[in-house]
Amino acid sequence: MNNKIKVAVLGATGFTGEMLVEIQLNHPNVEISYLASRTPNPVPYHELFPRFYKKTDLYCENLNLDKAVKNSDIFFLSLPHTVSMSIVPELLNKKKKIIDLSADYRIKNIKEYKKYYKTFHKDKINLKKAVYGLPEINKDLIRDADIIANPGCYPTAVILALFPLLKEGLIKDKVIVDAKSAITGAGRKAVIDYHYSNISDNLWAYKPFIHQHTPEILEILKKNTSKNIDLIFVPHVVGVDAGIYSTIYISFNKKILKKEINSIYKKYYKNCTFIRLLDGLPKLKDVIGTNFCDIGFVLNNNGEDCVVASSIDNLIKGAAGAAVQNMNIMKGWPESLGLL
Amino acid sequence: MNNKIKVAVLGATGFTGEMLVEIQLNHPNVEISYLASRTPNPVPYHELFPRFYKKTDLYCENLNLDKAVKNSDIFFLSLPHTVSMSIVPELLNKKKKIIDLSADYRIKNIKEYKKYYKTFHKDKINLKKAVYGLPEINKDLIRDADIIANPGCYPTAVILALFPLLKEGLIKDKVIVDAKSAITGAGRKAVIDYHYSNISDNLWAYKPFIHQHTPEILEILKKNTSKNIDLIFVPHVVGVDAGIYSTIYISFNKKILKKEINSIYKKYYKNCTFIRLLDGLPKLKDVIGTNFCDIGFVLNNNGEDCVVASSIDNLIKGAAGAAVQNMNIMKGWPESLGLL
Amino acid sequence: MNNKIKVAVLGATGFTGEMLVEIQLNHPNVEISYLASRTPNPVPYHELFPRFYKKTDLYCENLNLDKAVKNSDIFFLSLPHTVSMSIVPELLNKKKKIIDLSADYRIKNIKEYKKYYKTFHKDKINLKKAVYGLPEINKDLIRDADIIANPGCYPTAVILALFPLLKEGLIKDKVIVDAKSAITGAGRKAVIDYHYSNISDNLWAYKPFIHQHTPEILEILKKNTSKNIDLIFVPHVVGVDAGIYSTIYISFNKKILKKEINSIYKKYYKNCTFIRLLDGLPKLKDVIGTNFCDIGFVLNNNGEDCVVASSIDNLIKGAAGAAVQNMNIMKGWPESLGLL
Amino acid sequence: MNNKIKVAVLGATGFTGEMLVEIQLNHPNVEISYLASRTPNPVPYHELFPRFYKKTDLYCENLNLDKAVKNSDIFFLSLPHTVSMSIVPELLNKKKKIIDLSADYRIKNIKEYKKYYKTFHKDKINLKKAVYGLPEINKDLIRDADIIANPGCYPTAVILALFPLLKEGLIKDKVIVDAKSAITGAGRKAVIDYHYSNISDNLWAYKPFIHQHTPEILEILKKNTSKNIDLIFVPHVVGVDAGIYSTIYISFNKKILKKEINSIYKKYYKNCTFIRLLDGLPKLKDVIGTNFCDIGFVLNNNGEDCVVASSIDNLIKGAAGAAVQNMNIMKGWPESLGLL
Repeated sequence: MNNKIKVAVLGATGFTGEMLVEIQLNHPNVEISYLASRTPNPVPYHELFPRFYKKTDLYCENLNLDKAVKNSDIFFLSLPHTVSMSIVPELLNKKKKIIDLSADYRIKNIKEYKKYYKTFHKDKINLKKAVYGLPEINKDLIRDADIIANPGCYPTAVILALFPLLKEGLIKDKVIVDAKSAITGAGRKAVIDYHYSNISDNLWAYKPFIHQHTPEILEILKKNTSKNIDLIFVPHVVGVDAGIYSTIYISFNKKILKKEINSIYKKYYKNCTFIRLLDGLPKLKDVIGTNFCDIGFVLNNNGEDCVVASSIDNLIKGAAGAAVQNMNIMKGWPESLGLL
Repeated sequence: MNNKIKVAVLGATGFTGEMLVEIQLNHPNVEISYLASRTPNPVPYHELFPRFYKKTDLYCENLNLDKAVKNSDIFFLSLPHTVSMSIVPELLNKKKKIIDLSADYRIKNIKEYKKYYKTFHKDKINLKKAVYGLPEINKDLIRDADIIANPGCYPTAVILALFPLLKEGLIKDKVIVDAKSAITGAGRKAVIDYHYSNISDNLWAYKPFIHQHTPEILEILKKNTSKNIDLIFVPHVVGVDAGIYSTIYISFNKKILKKEINSIYKKYYKNCTFIRLLDGLPKLKDVIGTNFCDIGFVLNNNGEDCVVASSIDNLIKGAAGAAVQNMNIMKGWPESLGLL
Repeated sequence: MNNKIKVAVLGATGFTGEMLVEIQLNHPNVEISYLASRTPNPVPYHELFPRFYKKTDLYCENLNLDKAVKNSDIFFLSLPHTVSMSIVPELLNKKKKIIDLSADYRIKNIKEYKKYYKTFHKDKINLKKAVYGLPEINKDLIRDADIIANPGCYPTAVILALFPLLKEGLIKDKVIVDAKSAITGAGRKAVIDYHYSNISDNLWAYKPFIHQHTPEILEILKKNTSKNIDLIFVPHVVGVDAGIYSTIYISFNKKILKKEINSIYKKYYKNCTFIRLLDGLPKLKDVIGTNFCDIGFVLNNNGEDCVVASSIDNLIKGAAGAAVQNMNIMKGWPESLGLL
Repeated sequence: MNNKIKVAVLGATGFTGEMLVEIQLNHPNVEISYLASRTPNPVPYHELFPRFYKKTDLYCENLNLDKAVKNSDIFFLSLPHTVSMSIVPELLNKKKKIIDLSADYRIKNIKEYKKYYKTFHKDKINLKKAVYGLPEINKDLIRDADIIANPGCYPTAVILALFPLLKEGLIKDKVIVDAKSAITGAGRKAVIDYHYSNISDNLWAYKPFIHQHTPEILEILKKNTSKNIDLIFVPHVVGVDAGIYSTIYISFNKKILKKEINSIYKKYYKNCTFIRLLDGLPKLKDVIGTNFCDIGFVLNNNGEDCVVASSIDNLIKGAAGAAVQNMNIMKGWPESLGLL
């Protein structure tokens, strides 16, 4: 009676897990079959999040992996970093497809992983198999992957803005990324720093030079363009509800025309449903609630200095939306199914 | 060299404690002599709250009552309810003046206290001596008090709006108060409910009929007007930075004119620096950052139904500002010293 | 090749018009065929609202009624009050179905219309035919209507909360409605009062007793329950992005039990997809972005006083979503098509 | 009876003018003697801004220059750019002291003025006499000036962060400034772009490379350090209530130690009341409501790349507060009088 694919969401009560549930409840080819999170007893999901009342009668329970495996075909892991890699091997053994939204399978360089995530990688075998799930760059590999490493939110915004220009060999030396994010990017945690009074009307830079998304951006760009860049990445928290806005400062190694830059972006993204190339710079609110990545740029009069800005909804294109986009590709469905 | 009064703030790291520090740092006759809060080691206050850097070099430490007593003349207790009454007797023994911002000394009826605060009152002797510190009503008693029960934030807004009309015997039967407050009224707590994402753009009613400020409003109005009212009090949390706005629905027991109501308010508040009687209804933002209580009303065409609205900054006129106003009165200083 | 219904949106650049476009772009049975607004020249809709880029290539132009009529089957009029009634007669002559989101056809009493909208009604004939488009109450009439008067935002929230209790004859005398709305309810206007600085962190009551939605609430409730109420309606502007939250104070004319109230609501709304009856009071954010109306209540211990709260997204269930729900009913489609 | 200095505020109803009034009402040595703005008739200032009720009984009227001159000693010009320079000559003739908050007297290079402000400079004589009113750099000149060009908001944040490092000759080639500002920086205008819905939760870059504050930053830095920089300045609008946060990316021309940078900042700012050097990066909210400029930096491990961040309240240290600080210096009063 029901030919829908069955999906499990492990870590269903974080911001990303909640968005995964929301998107997939509206996905025509999907049935959510299992929701897990740390909870003393099984509880209706809409009791945890009343906005889901009358949208779903699903329960959320402490992870029972056997039960999850029996019920589900695809696993979305919205778990804390370092937890995913303790579950992935067993799920792959059971021939399940995995879309992992943690950082565990994004970086192939395990030294960098150790340096930024403060723990040894425990699953090097599957790390090699994992495909970085940025569809605009990796669609062919995603199609056949068993395990997808879903990109980080900042890397999505930054890589999409830089990839075409870097691939064409135009970018000179240093690239500076000044990124601004809503606090939801930090996860749903009961800490005083995320209290309304500390976020509302506030704004600050954090982790300059050392944010854990830095090696991810560098490795993926290197792998896909064979180019190195000298990246300075400085994220900021901004008192907005949702979204990431990255302002990127580059110099070209020769004078270039606006129309040439436009042509390059179009060349790489002409078939990408979720990239919107703008004439001018984006505004954050235009992408909120969508899976779009808006990209715009302004070239200085000297024809060399350029500001590129990209914006995404950090929980959608920066997490749950991209994950569903990856699933669509893996299943051979239209890439935008359930996402427009 | 220094003739300033020395004040201690116990509970200096809550929202109210922080505001007490801020106001008193600007008070010409006051020197803050002692700050206490739960903290592992003494720590510069501006490390806890960087916005105080270059404003104060004071340290904050775990409460050492002997030290506090030795250093200070007046004590501001910005402590959790039920904690104040365990300290007050000793402070009074040492002949210290106390302004208690908790609920412990506001209600004389200890059964009501037990009912709403879920604990027996432990200091009935001093409870009797405590003066309810609403200067617009109780100035003479405040002047000579040893211990002030600083009013709750909602009661301040509600009592100030109702007192003159009730005292004049004009209000018929039921009074409905629909009050809206910023989340800071709930205290500085690391709970998920106060996370930015749960407060921003949100709004809800809570504790209808049973909020702990209900008996306070009733007892104080009864004591000062000899009138009973049938009060329905419903507070709301609103996603604003600061403030309380109370919309009050009353009916008069006879037809009345707008100018008569104006005369009544003027009669009672003509000498009250911090009451602003408006021609029309207040807007919340006009009182933020001030010790004012704005009051306005609109009379229905029938001359009987009336909406009165009052607004205050919940941390200033609703807490720390009123406390300093009380201190000014106790010391015989101009009531508005350090508050304009 | 395309069997979709063709719809025109007149007034496509207001907040409501924009939401009508957004919802109907996602409606499986609808093709938007015509967009009009005051604009010097035809302009791509996504140039006016960049967030629609890659979602639609439609143009928006100055109203050309002949062209609109030729292209469209159903007309959504998202026009200023008093403008709709100058267009409706011609559209009805051309056998078009109309869903009018202005106030022009909501109130049958033309004296009240004159009183609250400061103009004579110019289309009394069609006024009589118009059906008040609140599906939860009027579904049968909506099905066969040629012209729908889409309800006001406040009336939607208030009527849905009151209707079952009033119909059952339980409500005594006075009903007080303290309603809170986002500023988008006032329309997209370039006035200093709606400047970010005047709305953010602000809150105020306006038009007490005399808001133009008052006669609408009264007339509709009277017509559908044969009961009169003494309504006191006081709207507020609140600095939130979206939504209406109405807190309603009622007294029952006899002691009643919580479960009896629950039964009554269930009796009237059991088949209503978009009503969510809660156990407790709603929070505004839970309905934002949805067509739901959340309703909850708390009964006082005396069994007589009761607070009912309802919340809606003012631009969806309070305007564009309800309009699409009405269209679905008129066309015999599932009521929730395109709305979940 | 009154030895206070009499000040006039011309342009008293913009955001900056309003802040000038607020600050000077609390200034012990000042009496506001005249308020002007475009208004049909003289009107109590607290009717225009109800939050000033009971704070001032001053009227605001259309500019009557003779009357203003007769009543006032010091003139604060909070007028639109290009308007100031039509009034300044007459005021200087009358021996009045002027603090001009427009851009008219900031840039000595009249070609740059013409390029960025789209008009010829009309008062070249006084332009030469005008002193750039950044006290942390120009205190000695300010003391004796007749006309002060009060700095722009962005230049204040940027110059204060860069000046010591540039003066010491440490900064290599390109400097990138990613600045974020509240919308109040754009002035109080009734335009749809500043509607609450367009600002709240929004964020965007604008005028990259060509913002009119660029030449101001360059000229002032050059004049005071004799160094040129290659500046890329990209401002952003952020949906916060107040403030500017500038994130500045520099490279040093040699390896340097954190403590050396600290020493340099201390050397230049040790006597500057309103500069707060932080150990780490600032948060915007810590300066809101104050005249402080917070400056912090993080040096990359390579000892060459560095991020400096500075934050100010755009209407205080970025406008009205700095103006009052300048007046204090001109009058020989303590620099912080009325500003703490």
